[in-house]
Amino acid sequence: MLEAVRAGDLDASVIDLSVRRIAGLDARRGSRTAGVDLDAHHALARELAAECAVLLRNEHDTLPLRGGVRIAVLGALAEHPRIQGGGSAHVNAYRVDVPVEEIRAVAAAHGSAVAYATGYRLDEPGSEELVAEAVAAARQCDVAVVFAGLSERWESEGVDRDSLDLPAEQVELIRAVAGVAPRTVVVLSNGGVVSLEPWHDDVDAVLEAFVLGQGGGRAIAELLLGVRNPSGHLAETIPVRLHDHASSLNFPGEQGHVRYGEGIFVGYRQFSTFGTPVRYPFGHGLSYTTFVTRSVSARVTGPDSVTVEVEVENTGGREGKHVVQVYVATTAGPVRRPVRELRAFTKIELSPGQRETVRFELGRRAFAYWDIDAGAWVVAPGTYEVQVGPDAHTVEVTASVELAGEIVAREVTLDSTIGAWLEHPVISAPTLQALGFADATISEEHMAMVRSMTMRQFITISGLDLPVERLQELAATSRTH
Amino acid sequence: MLEAVRAGDLDASVIDLSVRRIAGLDARRGSRTAGVDLDAHHALARELAAECAVLLRNEHDTLPLRGGVRIAVLGALAEHPRIQGGGSAHVNAYRVDVPVEEIRAVAAAHGSAVAYATGYRLDEPGSEELVAEAVAAARQCDVAVVFAGLSERWESEGVDRDSLDLPAEQVELIRAVAGVAPRTVVVLSNGGVVSLEPWHDDVDAVLEAFVLGQGGGRAIAELLLGVRNPSGHLAETIPVRLHDHASSLNFPGEQGHVRYGEGIFVGYRQFSTFGTPVRYPFGHGLSYTTFVTRSVSARVTGPDSVTVEVEVENTGGREGKHVVQVYVATTAGPVRRPVRELRAFTKIELSPGQRETVRFELGRRAFAYWDIDAGAWVVAPGTYEVQVGPDAHTVEVTASVELAGEIVAREVTLDSTIGAWLEHPVISAPTLQALGFADATISEEHMAMVRSMTMRQFITISGLDLPVERLQELAATSRTH
Repeated sequence: MLEAVRAGDLDASVIDLSVRRIAGLDARRGSRTAGVDLDAHHALARELAAECAVLLRNEHDTLPLRGGVRIAVLGALAEHPRIQGGGSAHVNAYRVDVPVEEIRAVAAAHGSAVAYATGYRLDEPGSEELVAEAVAAARQCDVAVVFAGLSERWESEGVDRDSLDLPAEQVELIRAVAGVAPRTVVVLSNGGVVSLEPWHDDVDAVLEAFVLGQGGGRAIAELLLGVRNPSGHLAETIPVRLHDHASSLNFPGEQGHVRYGEGIFVGYRQFSTFGTPVRYPFGHGLSYTTFVTRSVSARVTGPDSVTVEVEVENTGGREGKHVVQVYVATTAGPVRRPVRELRAFTKIELSPGQRETVRFELGRRAFAYWDIDAGAWVVAPGTYEVQVGPDAHTVEVTASVELAGEIVAREVTLDSTIGAWLEHPVISAPTLQALGFADATISEEHMAMVRSMTMRQFITISGLDLPVERLQELAATSRTH
Repeated sequence: MLEAVRAGDLDASVIDLSVRRIAGLDARRGSRTAGVDLDAHHALARELAAECAVLLRNEHDTLPLRGGVRIAVLGALAEHPRIQGGGSAHVNAYRVDVPVEEIRAVAAAHGSAVAYATGYRLDEPGSEELVAEAVAAARQCDVAVVFAGLSERWESEGVDRDSLDLPAEQVELIRAVAGVAPRTVVVLSNGGVVSLEPWHDDVDAVLEAFVLGQGGGRAIAELLLGVRNPSGHLAETIPVRLHDHASSLNFPGEQGHVRYGEGIFVGYRQFSTFGTPVRYPFGHGLSYTTFVTRSVSARVTGPDSVTVEVEVENTGGREGKHVVQVYVATTAGPVRRPVRELRAFTKIELSPGQRETVRFELGRRAFAYWDIDAGAWVVAPGTYEVQVGPDAHTVEVTASVELAGEIVAREVTLDSTIGAWLEHPVISAPTLQALGFADATISEEHMAMVRSMTMRQFITISGLDLPVERLQELAATSRTH
């Protein structure tokens, strides 16, 4: 541009104008952060992070760490935390908590000593030397806390991982440390699910921290040392194997196309409906206290709307937060349904021994299916079970309601199957009568075969003198929408 | 008709004509069976049956049964064999071998005594009395042989089972017997797969006889007592759970439609490709001798045709038949392939120590995929591995061939992704050149993101001075069919 101005091709006033615009923008930015309490924001970021981390496993009450113990913090992610997604997910943080420093600070107040070793370098090949150093530190501790996870390069725009594995050098570190440390805790930092299979049973506790943002370091430290009580729950299933996902059949697709062939059986809906074993189900999350769901009630309060009340008790020894998960289960309607679906949830805080009743209002969408004929969400008449439990695979208490719903009936014709005629919500009874099935003209065993014949075939094959005209009249009245 | 003739409504000559036709048909039937050696047919039926039964499990060399042992044959199917499908699958047999009688006859020649108890009645509720009687017989035997399976009513026209379970009373019998008998063998008679899970580990041997026809009774007896050597192999997978089948997502469908959503991953193609654990894989079948596949060679003998030679040795102590299974595996071409597919097989008979080389000619269909654009079976250029093994999950020996194949290339346009341009079998190299990618203008990490952009987006976003006209020329030449 300097050359263009000198050559007389560009007027200097055009540049002045542009510079003034940029300077103005910068001034506005300054005024927007002025008066903002960034430290309060950081405190909030820590609080949110602490509520998001999920305590997956805690054998032998390994967590929270006792006072006065020797802690070995191991793994580069303790020093270089993963706080956000890669690529365009990047934002600039006002400050970033470093987990190992925060653990040192919190542990000091508990009379605990903290050693640190790198163990591996992110996105670099494994190093026997670094593992040996970490193992040496682990030998001299009471509890080893291994930080593992995925770097941003694996979870960025346009990148699809093709495995659930942690980097091999991290798996090696976890196993080596678990082999020598009296107790081993793994803290995970990752966006998408990682497999726990190669080392899960070797370690005592697992805190799945996911990607916690700028306050994550302090949050992890306070959760590990019991200043805070974990209350996060899984928003996705941790499978045993990647290929246990039904989407494996279609992903990543071919010739430019992926068919979403799992249909409505996405995530936990698949695993819970088909009973596929999982490592940890959707909704799972432990606490340092325990909660029991004492009861659930459900009553119909309007057309297809239901009020649910759930009573929960903190039966453990300390204050904590509990997520009440309300699932709905039904076999009503003409389409296949998942065994249950999460329809409402909330988080409540309870002191030891405290009971609370939580109320949920479920609207028609909590019960509806998408009817492709009607082109609408439809509530089918029938029984709906409200199920409350600690995760998508476990039902603690249930209550049932009957909903009036609405009937969406397809048209039947002489070319529809006998089954379709007999199951038709409007014309089933007159059909039975017209066919004389009420007189048990057809044995139960033959009925299995007959159901899949069309009415026209049946009229021909049965040799019975069937009232074809009456059947055609019924067919004409069969469509309800 | 008699009334009609008397009333003069029907001429008696019409009836005479019809009767003559029927009598003529009957005479022809008689002449067709005259001179037919029905006993020879029955002997052939026994031989075929013996080759079809599959020995699934044989711990502690329980089978063949030793001479001089006390055998308890248990279960109504030993007395009332299931020889064929229900409904229209029924044919009339000249004679039917009854398993328990045949076992008695063959065992007598081996100095073995046979006791029999019913255990259950087909299609009736379980009876504690019958189980107790069978258990009493099992206590006094050296080996119990329990006959279990499905009756015709479960496998007939228009009937779809909704479970893989054996009837509960049969499972109860097997478990009760296995709890007291020194050794337990289960003989299964069923058309479709039944689950072995509830009792598999409790028994010593399992002979899956399926539905063996009129000579099955003798065949089973001779297999159990070692007069014949089993050589049948599974033509389907025995899964751990019904819902392990990908078709569970779609079957039995809804609102009159089933989508065959498993695509090409039917049967073993699914289980082997996704590593889903199975009870017994497709192709499995044991023998009383052992076979080792010593080598395989493969050479290209024409356009997309390959000659495969497999050398097999009987490494065991008795004569037996072995099924050589030839699978083909490839990742060539633009569509997803199962991890391997059975493309040829044959059965050979070998004496102890005998080696034989078997030759297979594989044609283009052994390597081809269906190309939806070309509307044809296409052999993609690339490497194909010929794999030989004892079942669809186990590879014993391999050989590789390179096939010239044929390129089917889709047209790319400016709205195709960069990935599609770079993977294009015809224009990939000139595309790279035109885009200057050869100069590594884009880092490997950014490439992951760039690949999923369309060429048009990339031209806009990259800010590079790209040769749009050259790219359009390339696009025009991209379609090859």
